[in-house]
Amino acid sequence: MCKIDVQTRILARNDDTASHNRIHFLERGIFTVNVMGSPGSGKTAVLEATARAFDRRAIAALAGDLATDNDAARLQRAGIRSRAITTGQACHLDAELVHHELHHLDLSGVDYLFIENVGNLVCPAVYDLGQSANVVALSVTEGEDKPLKYPTMFAKADLVLITKIDLLPYLGTDLDAIQDALARVMPNPQVVLLSAREGYGIDSWLAWLTKSRDEIFSAAEVMA
Amino acid sequence: MCKIDVQTRILARNDDTASHNRIHFLERGIFTVNVMGSPGSGKTAVLEATARAFDRRAIAALAGDLATDNDAARLQRAGIRSRAITTGQACHLDAELVHHELHHLDLSGVDYLFIENVGNLVCPAVYDLGQSANVVALSVTEGEDKPLKYPTMFAKADLVLITKIDLLPYLGTDLDAIQDALARVMPNPQVVLLSAREGYGIDSWLAWLTKSRDEIFSAAEVMA
Repeated sequence: MCKIDVQTRILARNDDTASHNRIHFLERGIFTVNVMGSPGSGKTAVLEATARAFDRRAIAALAGDLATDNDAARLQRAGIRSRAITTGQACHLDAELVHHELHHLDLSGVDYLFIENVGNLVCPAVYDLGQSANVVALSVTEGEDKPLKYPTMFAKADLVLITKIDLLPYLGTDLDAIQDALARVMPNPQVVLLSAREGYGIDSWLAWLTKSRDEIFSAAEVMA
Repeated sequence: MCKIDVQTRILARNDDTASHNRIHFLERGIFTVNVMGSPGSGKTAVLEATARAFDRRAIAALAGDLATDNDAARLQRAGIRSRAITTGQACHLDAELVHHELHHLDLSGVDYLFIENVGNLVCPAVYDLGQSANVVALSVTEGEDKPLKYPTMFAKADLVLITKIDLLPYLGTDLDAIQDALARVMPNPQVVLLSAREGYGIDSWLAWLTKSRDEIFSAAEVMA
């Protein structure tokens, strides 16, 4: 029982901080995306490709990993303001880690904040960070049945980016089977096929971002 | 404080059950491998290739996932006695889940038991299952720096299988960089390059298995 109580208390406290983060983002007009996916699913590569195609001054990123600041360094080289969050032993980011790091990130002029979570298809889905949307990167190299094996992650995704599709000719992966699996677990399946290396699908991804941001902030204006 | 106490108690209880499992395996001459790796790193494909190259009657498997029995079904089709363990929301197997499932798996004549853990480079490394060895599958599609980003997993690995090496010509991945990263976190780096699809490296993997089993059971005989 104590285990459940502790877990409940940890999540309740996390939700409080996440709400605080969310208010902060919304007040500043920042559309925040929790970018999740397996290790090596191409999360950082998608953000690098986003930097190449978008106004870099309007983008910032936090990059979570157990150790190293490799991803934040990659994103800085791509021209994105970014900070690393190292979690030590923890398998996911939480709202407090994000809140702490926000004090060190210049968000002036930023319209989109990407929070690249720890590579993991389980734990990150449970912890709200205050984001506006959940995006999951799923590489075609991971096979067809990951949505069925990790249903919580994909059920919470607002958008799934099927990444590395340039590798399809060299794999036995059936793209239709991936999409069928997603349709079985996502309440409202939204999918973009993407190759960060070749730039394929980046237009659709950017269109989704701008449309999603517009929806939130025009709704906020109507309510104000 | 309560969180730490609970975590300590959970791990202590897990260790007790893991010791019980370990005695059971050793008494029956079974070399048990905890097979870990990212989602889609090729764990099941390695076991399928093992079944093709080895005496299938000497192999059994438990296959862990949050949901579905897909991997256990694949292994059964490959001729391996196997059972699924579904963890629900849990990001790893534990010793109790393994112990419970052992009662449903016929281990007569089995020399090697593979426990395919939940696809995850963090949590499975923390929970002892009673195994003789930890093996991590790391796909070349995951990039070069995963050992540095998930050091606990790789530091605990007795062997790393670098999988899907048939895809190297189509990737920008630097194999030397992966091996350098492994050498920085593994106390005693043992690595096999492997392509389950093309059968490359399977001989080295089987040689490692038989040598490792022989070492444990000849040591046990000397002590007896």
